[in-house]
Amino acid sequence: MFERAHIREIEGYVPGIQPSASAIKLNTNENPYPPSPRVMAALREISPAMLQRYPDPLAKAFRTVAARIHRLSADEVIATNAGDELLRLALNTFVDPGRSVGIVTPSYGLYSVLAALHQAPLSEVALTEAWQLPEGTAERWNEDGAQIAILTNPHAPTGTLVPFKMIERLAAAFQGVLVIDEAYVDFIDPALDHDATTLVRQYPNVLLLRTMSKAYSLAGLRLGYGLGDPALIEPMLAKTKDSYNVDAIAQLIGAAALEDGDYARSTWQEVRLERTRVANELAQSGFSPFASQTNFILVPLAQPYAKCSAAVAYRKLIERNIYVRWFDAPRLRDKLRITIGTRQENEIFLSALRDVVN
Amino acid sequence: MFERAHIREIEGYVPGIQPSASAIKLNTNENPYPPSPRVMAALREISPAMLQRYPDPLAKAFRTVAARIHRLSADEVIATNAGDELLRLALNTFVDPGRSVGIVTPSYGLYSVLAALHQAPLSEVALTEAWQLPEGTAERWNEDGAQIAILTNPHAPTGTLVPFKMIERLAAAFQGVLVIDEAYVDFIDPALDHDATTLVRQYPNVLLLRTMSKAYSLAGLRLGYGLGDPALIEPMLAKTKDSYNVDAIAQLIGAAALEDGDYARSTWQEVRLERTRVANELAQSGFSPFASQTNFILVPLAQPYAKCSAAVAYRKLIERNIYVRWFDAPRLRDKLRITIGTRQENEIFLSALRDVVN
Repeated sequence: MFERAHIREIEGYVPGIQPSASAIKLNTNENPYPPSPRVMAALREISPAMLQRYPDPLAKAFRTVAARIHRLSADEVIATNAGDELLRLALNTFVDPGRSVGIVTPSYGLYSVLAALHQAPLSEVALTEAWQLPEGTAERWNEDGAQIAILTNPHAPTGTLVPFKMIERLAAAFQGVLVIDEAYVDFIDPALDHDATTLVRQYPNVLLLRTMSKAYSLAGLRLGYGLGDPALIEPMLAKTKDSYNVDAIAQLIGAAALEDGDYARSTWQEVRLERTRVANELAQSGFSPFASQTNFILVPLAQPYAKCSAAVAYRKLIERNIYVRWFDAPRLRDKLRITIGTRQENEIFLSALRDVVN
Repeated sequence: MFERAHIREIEGYVPGIQPSASAIKLNTNENPYPPSPRVMAALREISPAMLQRYPDPLAKAFRTVAARIHRLSADEVIATNAGDELLRLALNTFVDPGRSVGIVTPSYGLYSVLAALHQAPLSEVALTEAWQLPEGTAERWNEDGAQIAILTNPHAPTGTLVPFKMIERLAAAFQGVLVIDEAYVDFIDPALDHDATTLVRQYPNVLLLRTMSKAYSLAGLRLGYGLGDPALIEPMLAKTKDSYNVDAIAQLIGAAALEDGDYARSTWQEVRLERTRVANELAQSGFSPFASQTNFILVPLAQPYAKCSAAVAYRKLIERNIYVRWFDAPRLRDKLRITIGTRQENEIFLSALRDVVN
């Protein structure tokens, strides 16, 4: 009755299921290891006065730590209520309703929901068979008048990495703000030496999204940050974000997590080792998982090695209290997306999957 | 360069100063007492797994507690990243850009900033000399085609309570969504028996805003909630809010705060006693503070009893490490807004104020 007409017609974004703690949960790409002990120590330092008073609206201490880690300055960093808030702020700050938002397909489903809420049409570019950017991506977005474009890199839900040179070419050719959603960047094999933060000072239109949810095992906390030219950061920081968007606890324990880089890196390395092992096991069982630089693997489930569809396998796994992700979308509905868990979780999953598809 | 044109022209909302912990801080209406011991106990129960996993996107446990306290059902409640988020969601969900937002003047400065960001003009109704609603307020908003109107009650920054009957008449006459920002409602004298939650089931256009920041001493946590008809709540809950807008810690310790109503009520009663005492002291020193049903007092600083302007007194108090609020706005710039502190803080303030104005 009071809802705006275009909102009434939108289907909201549906997050992955949050099952009970006893489930094998490989559906929303959390880090399978707990947060750093320093995070828990910082949590125990929270005083009543810190809760009683308003937090720093600009999260200066957290931004200073993030800036140091990325060799940037604090005015090139904005702290947000996880990555979702940064995506929303980027749309609200840089896109006039009616102007379009560039994405690739497939993409994280939230992008199209946010664009629809903002009444911004999509300029969609289909990834190649190898899940890479086709030639002319930036040009297509430019022709459609896109004011921002959002690319997950490494990509979700495929796990593919778009190489640095391609990203740089995109930044140079695209005329709007290029948001690179680096939610999974820390799981990239270090041997690839991928580092897009150098683009921040070279391209005034590059906005990198980082989240503490995955790499730092803090999905429950809701903390992320953006890296970009101060001219991109300032309007979001001073105008479009909610005044006190990040709470005092998140500011404190988020900084503690960033400062314990050694711990975080050890979890990323474990995830990479398990990623390789799970991919090998899947291959040995007849599956052909896509190569992944993230903490999940996309696995096609097709004849002849799978005797049931991905949708059926998804439901049968749930019956065994194992949750993975299935997307009812083009190019994805014959596949399952599996978050890399602990070794034990992965073993239970692999054994159940073999059972289910036979 | 990439910022939208209308955003470039907006001055962002400027929150009150967050001075160092040693300051006497009477400028942003925090509760002067710490949060409930049960909040601190709940905080110590936060496990690594709670941080590692995504929180409940719908905050069902918290909403169930809030619903019970207000004798409503959980589908009449939405949990938000403090009151600011609910205000933003209400605009985004119910107001088409170009359509207006009803407010009264003076008002909490954030309302006009949010409307400007949303490209919604204001339909402004000036409060009477006694800071009450003038006749024809709803009609004026209706004539201007306002899709929502926002009223702080008790009012900020004046401290005045608009009586229940007036609110009910407004709800019946206004054709849009009436957002009643009840940030200060718990500080109302219980003898007045003011309770607007009964309007939720009588008027499908009433949306009440509650915050844990003030009454529950949790400004640092960023937690609030809205109460309204499910037809108002549902589109915000399922579509326009960020997927995981409230973190796991806030959901858990916010519920603990609500459940310890006895403790919270004891702080409200202390604040009321101090409010009366401070008002009496001010009157005895020659000031004429406005009657307040909130946790702050608005004090005119005019000749002959004040020998300096409110702006000068504000700055001189800061020199003494005492922070109050001064608004450079019509009808307010000759006044100071003083948050009620602890007895000791109030004594230091009163003594300094007498010094400064003489």
